[in-house]
Amino acid sequence: MEHIKKLNINRIKDGKMELVEDFVIAEYPLTIFINGQEFITLLCSPEGLKYLTVGFLVSEGIIKNKDQIESITIDKDKGHAYVELYDKSSFTEKLFGKRTITTGCGKGTVFYNVLDSLGTKQIDSSLKVGWDKILNLSRKLNEHSTLFRETGGVHSCALCDSDDILIFYEDVGRHNSIDKIVGQAVLSDLDLSDKILISSGRISSEMIIKAIKSNIPIIVSRSAPTELSVKIAKQFNATLIGFARANRMNVYNGQERLLSK
Amino acid sequence: MEHIKKLNINRIKDGKMELVEDFVIAEYPLTIFINGQEFITLLCSPEGLKYLTVGFLVSEGIIKNKDQIESITIDKDKGHAYVELYDKSSFTEKLFGKRTITTGCGKGTVFYNVLDSLGTKQIDSSLKVGWDKILNLSRKLNEHSTLFRETGGVHSCALCDSDDILIFYEDVGRHNSIDKIVGQAVLSDLDLSDKILISSGRISSEMIIKAIKSNIPIIVSRSAPTELSVKIAKQFNATLIGFARANRMNVYNGQERLLSK
Repeated sequence: MEHIKKLNINRIKDGKMELVEDFVIAEYPLTIFINGQEFITLLCSPEGLKYLTVGFLVSEGIIKNKDQIESITIDKDKGHAYVELYDKSSFTEKLFGKRTITTGCGKGTVFYNVLDSLGTKQIDSSLKVGWDKILNLSRKLNEHSTLFRETGGVHSCALCDSDDILIFYEDVGRHNSIDKIVGQAVLSDLDLSDKILISSGRISSEMIIKAIKSNIPIIVSRSAPTELSVKIAKQFNATLIGFARANRMNVYNGQERLLSK
Repeated sequence: MEHIKKLNINRIKDGKMELVEDFVIAEYPLTIFINGQEFITLLCSPEGLKYLTVGFLVSEGIIKNKDQIESITIDKDKGHAYVELYDKSSFTEKLFGKRTITTGCGKGTVFYNVLDSLGTKQIDSSLKVGWDKILNLSRKLNEHSTLFRETGGVHSCALCDSDDILIFYEDVGRHNSIDKIVGQAVLSDLDLSDKILISSGRISSEMIIKAIKSNIPIIVSRSAPTELSVKIAKQFNATLIGFARANRMNVYNGQERLLSK
């Protein structure tokens, strides 16, 4: 399996060293070219590369939908993704303004410009889900996470409806797994406004901004959210749940989408 | 404690919901200005901000030592770090070439340019450390990690000599904690070539590149390394240890620095 590489390592245990075979998670550099121009290199797990490319461009605001894409070609051996957009202007500057979260505009910290870029549009969704269903989905995510069990080196993320996992990715980068989900959803015209996103990892501001940009109403983590992600959830009326494990979870915002029965 | 914010949340447990007070980890936006020009915003835990600023600039190759710094002022309320360098040229382009790992030079993937920027200089160190000392330091790191126990939202990282922890940080970002350590070491003229870096989190390529840039010979994780970080450790002759917990650890490279007694 290309996600995992076999290595000979020295294992020290109880004061003795022995040479053993072990598995480590791959970290694959994917360089995205837009209209022939080198754009960015992402370090990721080597699957769903087309989806990662599209999801990253959507999450970073470079494109809004698949109709803007003329073609995408993945050269897996080289680690290159070639994207042709119908718009032939330079996107490098656009990314710089986002990625490094810095601009020359000089009014206040640009971090808040990233928030501004979301506009004032609240999450638009009528989804309501039972408590037990959320906990059930969290359990399913955990059962799916085989790479983590084998290598300890990835985070898993799943897009779900109320009953089951629809799309699942494990990746060395937390951000990549949500970008892969967003990319797959965009390319298959999947409506995300009645879906649930579940992550094994922490929910930072960057994670929740990606989810809100795609209008996903319920974001669940088996781990902790940051305070800033809670603030952003409140601002955009997203439901944010943390520590969803076994028979319990913490609801940080948006409990009106949760049903006790 | 400003690292942690108290919130009222709804806790659902065993089918019942109750309003409780809970703690979440702060995620603080720090915007760095260089020579008056806005440069980048880092999302971090709000301590060691001066060290973070210096460590980030060193890790990203913007500066090499503290003598290049004219002054640093932190405005904690605004979340701004103002850095004056003696060199008044623009650094924005320099960062873009690194941060987004993209350049216009067009020869191969730029990721490898980042590796190239390390040069061919191997880790230069005569440090040797006993197995038991490494495991002891890993245990100490775990005991220090109070924020993690309280909020589950941070990674901890420590710079150690053979016997004890010298510098310790917990941060919402794995990269920030190593940047804070590097910054503190640079400002206090600490030689890192006989030190050990221990992290609670995974060792990705970016993490090990930062450590190698500072000539730290032994990098230890309580968690997993990626395959790429193992490759980089081999290339630069760094000692890389993973899963250092209780009575065992995996040595991925550089066992010649480890002593059984």
